[in-house]
Amino acid sequence: MALVVQKYGGTSVGDVERIKNVARRVIASQKKGNDVVVVVSAIGGETDRLLELAHETADSPDEREVDVLISTGEQVSIALLAMALKSMGQDAQSFLGFQIPILTDSAYGKARISHIDSEKILEALKTGKVVVVAGFQGIDGDNSITTLGRGGSDTTAVAIAAALNADVCEIYTDVDGVYTTDPNVCERARKLNRISYEEMMEMASLGAKVLQIRSVAFAMRYNVPIHVRSSFNDQMGTLVCMEDKDMEKVLVSGVTYNIGEAKLTVTQVPDRPGIAAKLFGALADENVMVDMIIQNVSREGYTDVTFTVLKTDTSKAFAAAKKVAAEIKAGDVIIDEDIAKVSIVGTGMRSHWGVASSMFSALAKENINIQMISTSEIRISCVIESKYTELAVRALHDAFQLEKEQLQEEI
Amino acid sequence: MALVVQKYGGTSVGDVERIKNVARRVIASQKKGNDVVVVVSAIGGETDRLLELAHETADSPDEREVDVLISTGEQVSIALLAMALKSMGQDAQSFLGFQIPILTDSAYGKARISHIDSEKILEALKTGKVVVVAGFQGIDGDNSITTLGRGGSDTTAVAIAAALNADVCEIYTDVDGVYTTDPNVCERARKLNRISYEEMMEMASLGAKVLQIRSVAFAMRYNVPIHVRSSFNDQMGTLVCMEDKDMEKVLVSGVTYNIGEAKLTVTQVPDRPGIAAKLFGALADENVMVDMIIQNVSREGYTDVTFTVLKTDTSKAFAAAKKVAAEIKAGDVIIDEDIAKVSIVGTGMRSHWGVASSMFSALAKENINIQMISTSEIRISCVIESKYTELAVRALHDAFQLEKEQLQEEI
Repeated sequence: MALVVQKYGGTSVGDVERIKNVARRVIASQKKGNDVVVVVSAIGGETDRLLELAHETADSPDEREVDVLISTGEQVSIALLAMALKSMGQDAQSFLGFQIPILTDSAYGKARISHIDSEKILEALKTGKVVVVAGFQGIDGDNSITTLGRGGSDTTAVAIAAALNADVCEIYTDVDGVYTTDPNVCERARKLNRISYEEMMEMASLGAKVLQIRSVAFAMRYNVPIHVRSSFNDQMGTLVCMEDKDMEKVLVSGVTYNIGEAKLTVTQVPDRPGIAAKLFGALADENVMVDMIIQNVSREGYTDVTFTVLKTDTSKAFAAAKKVAAEIKAGDVIIDEDIAKVSIVGTGMRSHWGVASSMFSALAKENINIQMISTSEIRISCVIESKYTELAVRALHDAFQLEKEQLQEEI
Repeated sequence: MALVVQKYGGTSVGDVERIKNVARRVIASQKKGNDVVVVVSAIGGETDRLLELAHETADSPDEREVDVLISTGEQVSIALLAMALKSMGQDAQSFLGFQIPILTDSAYGKARISHIDSEKILEALKTGKVVVVAGFQGIDGDNSITTLGRGGSDTTAVAIAAALNADVCEIYTDVDGVYTTDPNVCERARKLNRISYEEMMEMASLGAKVLQIRSVAFAMRYNVPIHVRSSFNDQMGTLVCMEDKDMEKVLVSGVTYNIGEAKLTVTQVPDRPGIAAKLFGALADENVMVDMIIQNVSREGYTDVTFTVLKTDTSKAFAAAKKVAAEIKAGDVIIDEDIAKVSIVGTGMRSHWGVASSMFSALAKENINIQMISTSEIRISCVIESKYTELAVRALHDAFQLEKEQLQEEI
């Protein structure tokens, strides 16, 4: 008998029929002898509807009250799911954030979980109940409702699995699992059976939308195995877990892309200490998140500084950079929004050389020019012209033969 | 400087524009130097929409979970109102039942308030905030969400006014106040400036829908003055308060009618001890609420027993009565749904004679036959054929000259 935490997203609980389907799945797992805790999101689209109401009511709605408002979405879902379970003969009880409680800090809209009390949940499980927990929400030290930010229900599920020392945290979604790349772009994309936490985090931060990055970090810290799978079939999905020896042999696990960023270049920057701090300090003051930063060696006392930001922040970033450029007597600020970031991710890179050059030659073979490069221990990212995005993804997928199981490969 | 509790119903917060209007009203009251606590209902129609969802999900949805579900309606309203207030420059904070807390018993769907802690509210008021409280909801000893039943927000408002020892509880609604009778039936209906708690309770129990009867009982117990007024204009409404000397002089305050009941007669009932207990015990077992009961003296050892029930309970009541009739060897059970109950209410009846006969002659003058009569200390009700309802209401309104202020009258 195992203790299983299951999480169902907004699409899985999209309407009453789907909620009943979820109830049947939960009961099936319970019937296998498992103790089941279910975490649910709001009915698909509900959070957006509520946010729209907030913005109709106030230009910049109070953050505490926004959390009071949008947390109702999950409250509706847990009530309906618990009802469905009980009407099918399975005893169940819903729990809101404050009833467990799930304690968080007071950062409304992006709160972080500080503690989960497992007592009430374990008590309910002991009496044979399925426990239905509202995702996305918690309570702060003042008893105010908080929410965890977009995709926060994943984090709720993982955190509860950690608090309960659950055997697995199953994340049900509308895809079959984690793929080597976006199947819409590359038809040879293959579902991964296993992936390490680190790889999954890199994939998530690079734009793969299957799991919220914070939930993966949480799972890694507490070593909670995550099983990403479809709520519409019974196939095995992808297990996200600790890196093991087999994984180390895999050179590249996936290819991702992100077309949501813009590139800004400040030209003719005087090469003096403190200049970079001034520029990126100004961007931070404007709450602009900077992704990649490139500064090459200077020539004749001047250098160009290039960085990427979210497209939604382009104008804010441009204004800030322009102001600093004038102060430090640099040249123009140039914007380029026609860019894509293409990345390969793999734990095996740590111990293998030559992966970067394989990537660069695969792109070169397709005549794709590389504008920027950045690397981490298990990732290499290249900024290219956006029209080449799909071509680049397919070329890299082919170059690293991701359509095949990779265990045998050694370079 | 006064402490004012204001309650706005579902129509008053029907959409975002109306919520902004409520915010403006609240600010106006605050600007006059009042401390304001606002209790709000769900957006009009929302509770019904949620109940429909529950019944689509389960045939007989679990009562605890129904309360988790429908309490979200008020949660949405308080968040939006608090946002609107803050965006207009008025500091405000929303409170859910569990955050105050408003403690209740565990009778889901019809819980009763056992205690309200005033500390958090007073603290917030002290810092100049408007306090926005979710109506209709509370929390039981297990930290489960409860709701107070239809119109429960009135009760929340009165209970909070009592707990805070507020100067007045203003109930904002879509009518101007309490009228001598239904203005749709009698155009000479007059808005009452004042009415006693007892009269208001009789009126509410007889079908006047302005206030929930439990909220009036609560207000009477704690002597909280209720001001019933319109949320669409600034006119004074009706003050519901303790009976005073002036009120005692008023013979009849209002005329009400109720066409929601049916009349059942069990004929040829053997006149033995225990028969009535058997009949009405059977009805109670079926959860049928019986309103009026008439049993006249018997002739030759037999009598007829007549009673009224809600029309929605007619068939249940008929089946139960039929069964008992067979057991006790009585005659037929006859149903009559074409009835109306017309009532006059007035504190002055206590000390005045002749009111009943004035009522009966007013009906007789219009050739309206009286089928059943029942009285309380401050009320006389007659059951008549339903087609005469409006005629009877107008005749009684005229007979007691309710279009005029009544203070001078003495019979």
